[in-house]
Formats: sequence, C-alpha cells, structure tokens
Amino acid sequence: MTVTTPRGFRAAGVAAGLKSSGKPDVALVVNDGPSDVAAAVFTTNRCKANPVLWSEQVMADRSARAVVLNSGGANCYTGPAGFQTTHASAELVAQQLGFGAIDVVVCSTGLIGETLDRDALNAGIEAAAAKLSADGGVSAAEAIMTTDTHSKQVVREGRGYTIGGMAKGAGMLAPALATMLVVVTTDAAIDAETADRALRTATRETFDRLDSDGCMSTNDTVLLMCSGASGETPDADEFTSLLTEACHDLAQQLLRDAEGSEHDIEIQVVNAATEDDALVVGRAIARSNLFKTAVYGKDPNWGRILAAVGTTDAVFEPSALDVAFNGVWICRGGEPGEPRDTVDLSGREVTVTVDLKAGRQSATIWTNDLTHAYVHENSAYST
Amino acid sequence: MTVTTPRGFRAAGVAAGLKSSGKPDVALVVNDGPSDVAAAVFTTNRCKANPVLWSEQVMADRSARAVVLNSGGANCYTGPAGFQTTHASAELVAQQLGFGAIDVVVCSTGLIGETLDRDALNAGIEAAAAKLSADGGVSAAEAIMTTDTHSKQVVREGRGYTIGGMAKGAGMLAPALATMLVVVTTDAAIDAETADRALRTATRETFDRLDSDGCMSTNDTVLLMCSGASGETPDADEFTSLLTEACHDLAQQLLRDAEGSEHDIEIQVVNAATEDDALVVGRAIARSNLFKTAVYGKDPNWGRILAAVGTTDAVFEPSALDVAFNGVWICRGGEPGEPRDTVDLSGREVTVTVDLKAGRQSATIWTNDLTHAYVHENSAYST
Repeated sequence: MTVTTPRGFRAAGVAAGLKSSGKPDVALVVNDGPSDVAAAVFTTNRCKANPVLWSEQVMADRSARAVVLNSGGANCYTGPAGFQTTHASAELVAQQLGFGAIDVVVCSTGLIGETLDRDALNAGIEAAAAKLSADGGVSAAEAIMTTDTHSKQVVREGRGYTIGGMAKGAGMLAPALATMLVVVTTDAAIDAETADRALRTATRETFDRLDSDGCMSTNDTVLLMCSGASGETPDADEFTSLLTEACHDLAQQLLRDAEGSEHDIEIQVVNAATEDDALVVGRAIARSNLFKTAVYGKDPNWGRILAAVGTTDAVFEPSALDVAFNGVWICRGGEPGEPRDTVDLSGREVTVTVDLKAGRQSATIWTNDLTHAYVHENSAYST
Repeated sequence: MTVTTPRGFRAAGVAAGLKSSGKPDVALVVNDGPSDVAAAVFTTNRCKANPVLWSEQVMADRSARAVVLNSGGANCYTGPAGFQTTHASAELVAQQLGFGAIDVVVCSTGLIGETLDRDALNAGIEAAAAKLSADGGVSAAEAIMTTDTHSKQVVREGRGYTIGGMAKGAGMLAPALATMLVVVTTDAAIDAETADRALRTATRETFDRLDSDGCMSTNDTVLLMCSGASGETPDADEFTSLLTEACHDLAQQLLRDAEGSEHDIEIQVVNAATEDDALVVGRAIARSNLFKTAVYGKDPNWGRILAAVGTTDAVFEPSALDVAFNGVWICRGGEPGEPRDTVDLSGREVTVTVDLKAGRQSATIWTNDLTHAYVHENSAYST
C-alpha cells in the first residue's frame, strides 16, 4: 500500500539522528527500472531551499533513479555550504547505488535557516542504502514525517500497472512552512512527456487546491518516478485520471491530519465565468483569517465570505451572491437567507458553497480553520 | 483635540440603543461652513456596505455638510431595506439641519449581515442633532467605538488653520472585518481638487499601509470636511503634509489599540527597485500567518520572512537578501547572520527591516502579531 507496491522499486527508512526525538529521519526510494522516466513539480517560491535548487537540475532531463529525503532539517537559507550538503548527499546515494549523482533527487523538511548535519545525513544514507528492500515503502513513509501524526500512503491499481505514493505535511500545522513532500511511483511504462503532463494535471487539481494557511513553502516537492516494470503502457488520459485519484487521496490525508485544526473545510465555488475566477474566489475565502476563525467558532459567518469574495476581480454581482454552509443557503442575493441557526458546524467536515451566478465553471479549494492550536504550534515551534 | 477643534464644526454623540451595552452609538459631525468642500476614500471591497454605497453618491460632487456615524451595526449585506435605512438616516439628518440628504455622508460599523434598527437609529439622530455643539467632538469620537479600548483623536496646527480628526477600529481585533472609520476636519479654505488629492496622498501613506489581518473591510471610510472658517488657504503641499501627519497619528493609535495583540510590527522594506516592489514585499510579510505567530512567540524567525518575500514578483536576488529584527542583521545574503539570540522581542515594538538590494526605493507597512486573543475574539464575536 505504498511506494514499493508498484514493481521495480525498493525503499528504506532509518533514524540518523537528525531529529532530536531519535525517530526515523532519512528515507531512500530507488527506481530499479527498466525505465528511469520521472517528473516533478516544485514550490514556486522564489526563495527556494537548497534541495529544491539541486533537484530542479536533476529533473532537467526528466529522469531520476532515486530520491533521498530527510526530515529534521529543511536545509533552506543555509547558503553555499548547505547546497554542498545537498550535493554531497546525492553523490553518496549515487556512489552507494552505482549511478550518477545527477539522477538523485533530494528532498528535505524541518526547520529553515539552520545548518543540516552533513555527517549524520551521510551516515543515514549509508544505512538506508544497506537496508533497501521491496518492502521498505512503509519505513520510508515514516521517516519523512515531521508533525504528522501518521504516515500518508496510497495505492491505486490500473489495468496491468500500479501507482503507489507517500506524502508528508500536516496541513496548516506542519512546521517550517508546511512543507509538503510527495513521492509517487508507478510501474507503468510511460514516456517523459506523458509523465510530466499527467503529474502537472494531477497536482493542479489536488495539491495546488489545498491551501491550509496561505503560506508557500520553500521545500515543496512532488516527484513521480516510473519504472516501466509492468511492461504496460496505459492510455495517457486513463493514467492521468488514476494519478489524479492517488494525489487526491494523499491531499485529503494531509488535510485531515492538520493537528489542532478542528474543521476540514471544502470551499465549492460554482457558476463562475471561468475556472480561474472560481479558483481566485476560493483561495480568497481560504485565506481569510476572519472566515477561518469563524468556522473554528462554529459560526456560519457568510458576511465574512462575501467580504472575501469582494476582494477579487472575478466576474459577479454582489447583490446576486448566494452562500451555503453544509447545504443550507443562509445568504441569498447578498442578503440573509435561511436562518443561520439551522446550520450545524459541530462536525469536522464543513462545506461552503458560493454561487457566483456568472457562468458555468466551478472549482473546489480545501482548507482548515484557524485555531488556538495553530497559533500555539506556530509561535512555539522554533523557540 | 478633536474634530470640533477646527472652526466651523459642531458634533455630538449619543446612546441610541443600537449597542446592547447601552454605550453611545450614534455620532453626528456638522460642517457649518462657509465652505462645504469634502473628500472621501472608501473601501475597495466590491461587496460594499449600504452606507458606503450611499456615501459614494453623496461624494460625487465633492461636497458634504454633515456625516452621521453609528456603531452597533454595519448595515452591510442587508439588501434594499438596509439601503433604505441608510437613505432614511441621511434624510432625517438633512431635515433636522435644513439642507439636502445628498450632502449627508453615512458611516456604520458593527456586525454585518444583520438588520440595523431604523427606529433606534432615527431616535439617536434626533437626539444627536439636538445636542450638537462646538465641544461635541469627544462625545462623537466615543460613540463610534466598537472593540476600541479608547477613542482616537488628533489635532495638528497649521499656519492660520487647524486639522482635527477622530477614528475607530481596533486594528486586527476590530469586529466585523476591522472596519475603520475616520473623520478629519479642517478650517482651511481649500478647493475640492486640492482636498481630494491631499486626502488620497495622506491615506496612501498611512491608513493604506496598516495591514492588520489582511482582511478588507466592507465599510471603511475616510472623510475629510473643510469648513474654510479660518479664511486661510494653505499651500497645497504644506496642507498635504500636515494632513498626512494627522492621519499617521490616527493610524498609529489604531495599531496600538489592537486588543489582544502583543506586538506592533513595523516592516521596513529598503533598497527596492520601486516603491511598489517595497509595498508588495511589505504586505506579503504582513500577511504571513507564520511570521505573525512567530513574532507572538518572540521568535525572530527570518526564514519565514524570506519565504514570504519569495512569494512576490519584486526585483531581488534570493541570495542577496538581508533581514534585521530591531536593527540586528540576523540574516545576511540569504543565510544566517548575527546570532538570533541577540534579538530581544520582549517589548511591544518590533521593527523588521528587509534589504532587497535592488534599488533605492523604500516603504513601511505596519501590522500586529497573530495571537490567541485574535483567534478568541474573532471566533467568538458573533456567536
């Protein structure tokens, strides 16, 4: 049920002492082929971490043989010495496994602005390389956890091929800017172009629509590795659809594991003039602290939603807007609709629907509420 | 020391029962002339409150004789009936004072999405009109308070003329989207064009740079009324400068009265390629919940600042960025600089300086930290 479920992959997770807790913190996933096709999507933050700067170079030829991931330190804003640590870790993986460093993606997560212990990381890499196995996916998934309360893994079966995946990131409460690391594997035999397109489509409709606290990470990485070991070449659309399903599953696991959050909020924007309009409106709502604190207080405060919608340049008429909480239309035409006390927000799942009445497009954004625990965790994390 | 300090103004504040606390909630400020020149800046939110929709019409001819303000209800998202309440209140003020409703600006603040009690408001208007006096500025300033812990007032003396002002809004903890209402008066004799330019310049450099929680109000209004009673026509630049000083003073009072906040944060962005770049970067930092919770935790977390800077399209090189907290450059060239434990964030005032090294422009944005009290107040406010 993990990255080693598809054929052609080995993995391992070990404790290298990067985490003060002594928990596993170095993971390695290796693609034994026959194909080394890979695709990746990285954070769009311009101030990127060293592993992202390195991995962007690795992915220039759309191939990769392995990925090494560590928790316990983001290796971000650590300058040339930090980049050398990343490079050295790729070199060591390559040396252990007998290929080139330029085929090794590196991912890191943890505190930013602090030096990553190169010796400890290297020792971890050697231990992980020695422990690699076709059953190692679960231990790899555990080694990338930070404030996650459990590991996130997924498997989807296609016709003659399999997709597996693991992810870390505990939604809005994840540390160090909620870094999200995702590794997806498949034994489908697909070309680099198809892999790239499929991954971009899948992330655009899943991870990109998870907006936990509006902050953009420095280390976010989503990597797809394709071994081709099944010998099966699926239809591109079918593969994209299954990959999107797998990514959606992982994204929902991330959302639900936002520790301290009390609500998972699905914001549906419907009848927009364009999909972009729907997304812009959904994100504006998801980033309103006043809306998010209201949900925490179990208050179906539709006024704060209209105020957030009003900050966008989407096509709509203010006096035409309808808003529902959990299916109850408590705002109709920009005014009070059904009585707000008919809305029950005591459950974890909250659905907000905003009808722009401006067209036929729609989009969904997922977020969490803004709670005391968020403030606590993020004010105390590095002190 | 208030809106009635300049010659030619009368004001009053009364309790009309709009607030359940029974505290004053209706204010009236009247310009007795000889000039009725006025200028106003309103929220840019597209989902505006009824008083803003009305007052924009009032200000089309750049003149106003009076402003009526109420706390205890924002009259926002209350539909045509709410607009009629606003219109009726302007009509009543006009009737009491002997001029036209189209010369009466209306401002409201309080909960949004709830009907404003028209009868109570009208009774308050009649009481306020009867109580108008040249000493009434203080009572007017008190009647517009919501969660403000004290009234905000200012006076600046020019050469032969005076500027007075009052404001409400308790920074990030103000209710109903932190509505900011500001009334500035002057007995200078200035034309409508000069008044409009001066007010736009002053607000652009003061209130517009106060970004308490990134949420945009539905009711924000800044009104300038000019009586001309001093007979003095100041130089336009001199007047603009003095008006900016007065607005800066009121903005700082708003910042410092953000109840529950523990830090006032000044974000200085220096050596930007353009002033817009400096503003974009400053706002991105001010809107980062991770940065704001870090300051609450007295943690000089410069990594979260770089991550926020990296979300913008301003001109900069990530590896050239310097960041200081209270003058200590703990990030130099995108890496750790001075030891972070040399920064003391125990005081209320925190200054963050970001050096983009991309030009010669600069700008300052003010914000507050994100605290448990923010979450508490905004999750509990309307329930």
